[in-house]
Amino acid sequence: METILADVAPLAANGAVADYIPALAEVPADRLALSLCRTGGEPVGAGDCDQKFSIQSICKVFTLVLAMNCNQGERLWSRVGREPSGDPFNSMVLLEIERGVPRNPFINAGAIVVADILAAEYDKPVETLTTLISELAEAEITVDERVAESESATGYRNRSMANLMRSFGNLEGDVEPVLDVYFRQCSLGITANQLTRAIRFLANDGVDPVTGRQIVNALDARRINALMLMAGTYDAAGAFAYEVGIPCKSGVGGGIIGVVPDRAVVCAWSPPLDETGNSLAGRAALTRFVSRSKLSVF
Amino acid sequence: METILADVAPLAANGAVADYIPALAEVPADRLALSLCRTGGEPVGAGDCDQKFSIQSICKVFTLVLAMNCNQGERLWSRVGREPSGDPFNSMVLLEIERGVPRNPFINAGAIVVADILAAEYDKPVETLTTLISELAEAEITVDERVAESESATGYRNRSMANLMRSFGNLEGDVEPVLDVYFRQCSLGITANQLTRAIRFLANDGVDPVTGRQIVNALDARRINALMLMAGTYDAAGAFAYEVGIPCKSGVGGGIIGVVPDRAVVCAWSPPLDETGNSLAGRAALTRFVSRSKLSVF
Amino acid sequence: METILADVAPLAANGAVADYIPALAEVPADRLALSLCRTGGEPVGAGDCDQKFSIQSICKVFTLVLAMNCNQGERLWSRVGREPSGDPFNSMVLLEIERGVPRNPFINAGAIVVADILAAEYDKPVETLTTLISELAEAEITVDERVAESESATGYRNRSMANLMRSFGNLEGDVEPVLDVYFRQCSLGITANQLTRAIRFLANDGVDPVTGRQIVNALDARRINALMLMAGTYDAAGAFAYEVGIPCKSGVGGGIIGVVPDRAVVCAWSPPLDETGNSLAGRAALTRFVSRSKLSVF
Amino acid sequence: METILADVAPLAANGAVADYIPALAEVPADRLALSLCRTGGEPVGAGDCDQKFSIQSICKVFTLVLAMNCNQGERLWSRVGREPSGDPFNSMVLLEIERGVPRNPFINAGAIVVADILAAEYDKPVETLTTLISELAEAEITVDERVAESESATGYRNRSMANLMRSFGNLEGDVEPVLDVYFRQCSLGITANQLTRAIRFLANDGVDPVTGRQIVNALDARRINALMLMAGTYDAAGAFAYEVGIPCKSGVGGGIIGVVPDRAVVCAWSPPLDETGNSLAGRAALTRFVSRSKLSVF
Repeated sequence: METILADVAPLAANGAVADYIPALAEVPADRLALSLCRTGGEPVGAGDCDQKFSIQSICKVFTLVLAMNCNQGERLWSRVGREPSGDPFNSMVLLEIERGVPRNPFINAGAIVVADILAAEYDKPVETLTTLISELAEAEITVDERVAESESATGYRNRSMANLMRSFGNLEGDVEPVLDVYFRQCSLGITANQLTRAIRFLANDGVDPVTGRQIVNALDARRINALMLMAGTYDAAGAFAYEVGIPCKSGVGGGIIGVVPDRAVVCAWSPPLDETGNSLAGRAALTRFVSRSKLSVF
Repeated sequence: METILADVAPLAANGAVADYIPALAEVPADRLALSLCRTGGEPVGAGDCDQKFSIQSICKVFTLVLAMNCNQGERLWSRVGREPSGDPFNSMVLLEIERGVPRNPFINAGAIVVADILAAEYDKPVETLTTLISELAEAEITVDERVAESESATGYRNRSMANLMRSFGNLEGDVEPVLDVYFRQCSLGITANQLTRAIRFLANDGVDPVTGRQIVNALDARRINALMLMAGTYDAAGAFAYEVGIPCKSGVGGGIIGVVPDRAVVCAWSPPLDETGNSLAGRAALTRFVSRSKLSVF
Repeated sequence: METILADVAPLAANGAVADYIPALAEVPADRLALSLCRTGGEPVGAGDCDQKFSIQSICKVFTLVLAMNCNQGERLWSRVGREPSGDPFNSMVLLEIERGVPRNPFINAGAIVVADILAAEYDKPVETLTTLISELAEAEITVDERVAESESATGYRNRSMANLMRSFGNLEGDVEPVLDVYFRQCSLGITANQLTRAIRFLANDGVDPVTGRQIVNALDARRINALMLMAGTYDAAGAFAYEVGIPCKSGVGGGIIGVVPDRAVVCAWSPPLDETGNSLAGRAALTRFVSRSKLSVF
Repeated sequence: METILADVAPLAANGAVADYIPALAEVPADRLALSLCRTGGEPVGAGDCDQKFSIQSICKVFTLVLAMNCNQGERLWSRVGREPSGDPFNSMVLLEIERGVPRNPFINAGAIVVADILAAEYDKPVETLTTLISELAEAEITVDERVAESESATGYRNRSMANLMRSFGNLEGDVEPVLDVYFRQCSLGITANQLTRAIRFLANDGVDPVTGRQIVNALDARRINALMLMAGTYDAAGAFAYEVGIPCKSGVGGGIIGVVPDRAVVCAWSPPLDETGNSLAGRAALTRFVSRSKLSVF
């Protein structure tokens, strides 16, 4: 793992740290972490594995878990699709053409629908979420309020999508409270080692190996992995499947998680992003890791 | 004119009164008015010409006048285009593809940009607007607050467009105050005879024939007429040019104004709309009027 | 008129002569012509008014006349729309979304549908066309076979559109014979003075003032003018209406015709085009002509 | 396997056999086959496993193999993408917006680019293809000329796409010869047992287990599987990943192949299709097979 980090570290220079809010722009570009956790074991980390970063879109995996546990069955999938998003540049175009039903729960519009479900189904949705992740990560995971405020202050496009979905009747709650859940869920601070702990259940038929608790049922765990492979890395999902070969979910904080079903989970973190919004060095680290360990699902 | 009204009255049965807010849905479907005003004369009306209706999108002509008088020159036209909108069903698609610059000032997104300009340039933009229209109409024209509140409460799509334009940097003010101007401008109550008075300047080189005041310069008056012909009747602009043959601007309150340059103006009102959002009987009344009077600009 | 030509001549340097086929690329960029013809009179020309150029899209006006005379009534307008095209860059997008029905007869797809009608309704459609234009222009107008061959050899996008319309059932003839009509109609050679002669009927209630023959009925003549204003100058129709203010039809050969209903017709020619595909100096010449003569329809 | 077939057989009644050409429309709707082949073994079949059907889009896997073996490296992937297609209804829209570069080699436009490569790189591309498949399938696989002729005679949309790509310079050969390769490759007749034989190499690091020949290198075999998962089942790829959980490629002849890496391959056949163009009973058979055998890659 140290070798992989040494190999990929120079790549970060070709990327750009997300700078749409100050709290992300300030993160040092040379941070680099790789954490691996076998299904029944503890994380093995290299680099900055105990440094917190902003979870951003990786959190959409956990909010989807909470939504799938609301027992809405096919109603959930009538409000949000399970297909790749397909349009790299224009998030509103498909959303309007498909009448307010987002392509999948991992694009922003889809995650806002998921936030709407959480806001309706849970008394304190953000607390429910942080409690779940804290239990899985074996650490107290909290919202970085400064990040959350910046997200809300600059979130015009998310606000545009939420209002469009509301106009189509696919948002049931009021726009601002739903967006509050959404902006706060993106703003959790977490480390690479905490993340690998927190997602072990996805490689383990939905069961957290530490507590033995069934976080989602076994079939849903595999389905979440399938969704991650199809749509977990923005519009580079095809390239990730082709190059990396395992289900991944990335965030603009520079983190990427990967799941090797029945075997292990992995998390890479490096803040500079490529033009598709994925961590440049993180993506390379995962590619090398899967290639060397021959853990591709294909 | 009475003959025309008798001819077109039955057509209203094939249309549907706008019902997205109660104040519009409650308007009796059988109201029908036709008002004609020669450039130097007084309105001659038939039918319900002295009954108030909701001005809706017809007001975009007056807000454009105020924006053109802000002397922004080409800057105005860099923020909003002068081309037809082209997409009958999807208002967000072009707005995103064209990076937040609406096609013209008569589609909602364009009128919101115009409202943003008024909010920035005038201390009390809605008062400035009502003062202008009241002077032209020789009557006190006011906002119907019940309509304005309903417009705001249901205006998710307009809110979505405003936020999208804000994300592209093409809205300078905060979204809600700009939308407040927009929703209130749509909610003026006015009669057909008042409207023909109020738009006489468009057929008269920009001069109000009563006061002699230059409302816009002569060239801008002709340009507004050109814009109305290209884009004044939603996605039926081509059909209007082909069938009616004069510049028109319609609103979902059922009103349509028409301008015969250097000759006359006309206003028809009938609440039931066709599938393009234009007053069905009003459109037919204008078609017959232009045909009989041979006043087509073509 | 000489003054206008002197004023606009330098503008040609900012444009680019169409170069997708050699026969167009070879035309000297400094050719410049302006021809005016009052309804009942003879052309008055300035500059290169007796030099032939490629008619290109201006011919779509004459093929539309022939199609409107086939007495198909509304069937014609069910196969091709009367609305502006709206999308400056993507000709296939709307054509697919609107299931093979082109927006209007002046975009290429629409003109191909018109060519399909001519191929079905006339024994020798290209001969019928050249006979009509020759009679109107009082000169023998013929196909430049070299241009026609180049158009066919490079016409992949037109071939793509024709096949797409065929797949939607909106092309009735075989693709290649229909395209043959289309490519040949674009390839007529004609002078500015011949063009003003040939379109006088559009300003004269459909009657050719020389022969007294009714070329189209009076209503259709005005409708063609309306269509030209809405869609005659590619995606600059709004700008033309705003700046020039009369119905115009342009071609990539550098010609532009304009119609002042009941008064006159005008033709400008200068090969270099602006980024919208309209003759740069020609457009400026028309703008100045209409402005000075106060002949705007608005 | 017999149980699975008995379970899914009634579903076929809810689908519709492809009827755009007579040769497909005539296939009896009640044909049903399931063939399984472990990597090192022989096919085990149930139902109509020895009856020929039209390979259609499944053949795109084999043509991609031939193109990947042309050693064009990244040049191949600059001409055709590796991302899901994203738009269920409009094949031309993305193709135009993305300037003639198809999203992936499994949509028709992408397969036409692949056919263009084969036409340029192989003397007799269709013979090269049938020789390869015949060797793998241990049977003589040939073009059904009647099907190929019908495909060509009705292939207006494919012809439209080919011409559009030619206009963007992404088709190097002449349109008709390239389409000839494309239409003929779709028209191979093959049985379910022959197909499972023919695709064993995809589950076996690219090596045909019978001959030991390396059909593609091991990495490319896994990459083809990744592409199949992302884009192998038209616009139901996300639903297939979610429900079935293995890489699949389907055809409108009613066949679907599936690959369980390092384990086995499977082929189902039932002519009636669902609204996404995938075999309805075939899809259900694969879902049940993967579920019972716990062979999901996730």
